[in-house]
Amino acid sequence: MTYEEKCTIIFKKIKEEKPLVHHITNFVVINDNANTMLAIGALPVMSYAREEVEEMVALSQALVLNIGTLTPETVESAILAGRKANELGIPVVLDPVGAGATQFRTESALKILQEVKISILRGNIGEIGNLLGIKAEVRGVEGGVVDADTSDLAQRASQKFQTVVAITGKIDVVSDGKRAVKIKNGDILLTRITGTGCMATSLCAACAAVERDYLWAASSALGFLGVCGEIAARHSLGPGSFRVSLFDTFYGIKKEELKALLSLEVKD
Amino acid sequence: MTYEEKCTIIFKKIKEEKPLVHHITNFVVINDNANTMLAIGALPVMSYAREEVEEMVALSQALVLNIGTLTPETVESAILAGRKANELGIPVVLDPVGAGATQFRTESALKILQEVKISILRGNIGEIGNLLGIKAEVRGVEGGVVDADTSDLAQRASQKFQTVVAITGKIDVVSDGKRAVKIKNGDILLTRITGTGCMATSLCAACAAVERDYLWAASSALGFLGVCGEIAARHSLGPGSFRVSLFDTFYGIKKEELKALLSLEVKD
Amino acid sequence: MTYEEKCTIIFKKIKEEKPLVHHITNFVVINDNANTMLAIGALPVMSYAREEVEEMVALSQALVLNIGTLTPETVESAILAGRKANELGIPVVLDPVGAGATQFRTESALKILQEVKISILRGNIGEIGNLLGIKAEVRGVEGGVVDADTSDLAQRASQKFQTVVAITGKIDVVSDGKRAVKIKNGDILLTRITGTGCMATSLCAACAAVERDYLWAASSALGFLGVCGEIAARHSLGPGSFRVSLFDTFYGIKKEELKALLSLEVKD
Repeated sequence: MTYEEKCTIIFKKIKEEKPLVHHITNFVVINDNANTMLAIGALPVMSYAREEVEEMVALSQALVLNIGTLTPETVESAILAGRKANELGIPVVLDPVGAGATQFRTESALKILQEVKISILRGNIGEIGNLLGIKAEVRGVEGGVVDADTSDLAQRASQKFQTVVAITGKIDVVSDGKRAVKIKNGDILLTRITGTGCMATSLCAACAAVERDYLWAASSALGFLGVCGEIAARHSLGPGSFRVSLFDTFYGIKKEELKALLSLEVKD
Repeated sequence: MTYEEKCTIIFKKIKEEKPLVHHITNFVVINDNANTMLAIGALPVMSYAREEVEEMVALSQALVLNIGTLTPETVESAILAGRKANELGIPVVLDPVGAGATQFRTESALKILQEVKISILRGNIGEIGNLLGIKAEVRGVEGGVVDADTSDLAQRASQKFQTVVAITGKIDVVSDGKRAVKIKNGDILLTRITGTGCMATSLCAACAAVERDYLWAASSALGFLGVCGEIAARHSLGPGSFRVSLFDTFYGIKKEELKALLSLEVKD
Repeated sequence: MTYEEKCTIIFKKIKEEKPLVHHITNFVVINDNANTMLAIGALPVMSYAREEVEEMVALSQALVLNIGTLTPETVESAILAGRKANELGIPVVLDPVGAGATQFRTESALKILQEVKISILRGNIGEIGNLLGIKAEVRGVEGGVVDADTSDLAQRASQKFQTVVAITGKIDVVSDGKRAVKIKNGDILLTRITGTGCMATSLCAACAAVERDYLWAASSALGFLGVCGEIAARHSLGPGSFRVSLFDTFYGIKKEELKALLSLEVKD
């Protein structure tokens, strides 16, 4: 089976199994995250209160922890839900939004990484670099520049945090500490609407719900998003219509089209 | 006057009276809820703080209580606002999102039902079933399967909670304990974007603001949403364009079109 | 240089300098605010926790304080971030959403005005009137009627609060206490989607980040929004497609088109 076929099978399984993906996510993208899940055939549930997150995650097949608009309360809920997920063998995907921008974000992300076994850590190069203690320029939550090779960084982060690491950027890199996948799909318009990084994270979680090789779960998620972005861009006049078309494409993309457009480079 | 004419008159009155609808709603759909109100000619206001909800609801013509992303604080605010609405004779619509998924949700919904006189209770069959103590499978907040007849369930819930009950699903059922309306409108795409259940709830509130026969307020709201969904689906390539077209249709639908497409079955 | 040219230069500078705009904004429009920033080439960051707002604003080039879904905690964070911005010379734009609707909103807006030096105060006539102690009818957060001349009101508010005041409505008025600009652009559809007032506020902040004559920053922001609204309306079937087209226009509008359509009246 080719790598491209693996990816199409993962998305077919999502449609069949309809995994419930519990999100403790930020309020900027909460609606986009939910619509991303529904468009691919997964089910979203958003729940924050410490009174219920353990019970909710127990009903779920994957958990997203996204610190984009964090407070001490949501970090506490994230850890409660994460530990319960660990106990039950439910995959947990962490998005350390803005790590490095403030001490509170960096420390909260590191605290979650310490308290919860993370299946996939998905961030941009600035965020992942900062978690490794590399001084990276982070402008808010939208990017970052690090004087380091992305593949090397992904591998180091993977080894340090004992998790699959997915770094998104012009070229995405996924590493499990040994193997690596580069994904060369995408479109510049993905950077002109908010929340596409967070969508990538949610897609990682939906994929992880049906595929326990998390390197492949993450790679498939990022490849899928990149390909859908390319297709949506063709039908777009700007970010408004791009966003509409992106959800249409999540929903309607054919597996042949996905397979044909995926541009993966695998280092086993 | 036919039932279909009643529905068109309610939506005409909303355009004329522009009721202000106070929402204590969840953060997934908060933007969609506001845009739904504006598209039909009502005015939304979203306000949560216990410091102001009583004052805000006193300016309003209807109140929505939606527990989708509840916390103990928002439940407290919901009860404060609900009681003030009761005092002033302002209709209150409750959406017990995810009741049954967690104990906190079930208990919070029941607590609101106990403390506040609800005009319309709008949920899916899993949520309403769970509130009645029927063990129902609820997967997050997106659905539910109950081994019971929907009409029977709506009637029982209506009698138990002394409110109009609207259960949405493939066929919607509204009951006031005696009379019942079935609404056979809708499109599968309504289940592929988030928040259409919550939109149904907001529409119930806008209708209740101008029509004190809450059975008809709820039936008109659900009929309107179903018909708009059917029209929007014709112009859609997927959930992204469907959502856009849904708001366009809320805004532009002609009363003749609404009347012609409504598929109601009334049991007086 | 004509006034119209000034406006196009401001938006060119935003594209070049990519200012980071820190938002403490409401949950209805948080996603729209972020997408507005990205569409014009600025960078948004949304951050609320008192643990980090001072650090976050120090990385930013402008700060938005929007009290649409305020709580005592977000008001506290707004003041912390605002004071730090003052210390660092970063412009602060305040949107007193719903001031006058409840005592909590009026008092919170006045408290922020007292504790923080505001660069631009952007509201509708009801909100600004209420802050001046003029009894104004405010229906929720969507409008207001005041028995007073808008230009006079803007001037009085500007003098009282020692800030540029931008009052949006059918005709927008901006005053710095002496000079005044009237902006006659816009379309009725801007009132049929939620958050366009809040978008105006975010645009004011992005403009203020690159133009320290805040009268011109605010006037350019409102002119830009009005012109984009006019263009988007031409391509729209209703509020759903209008919103999509609005973001496309924010992104793609040509400076010649902007210059040609701007309708400004300046009183130096």
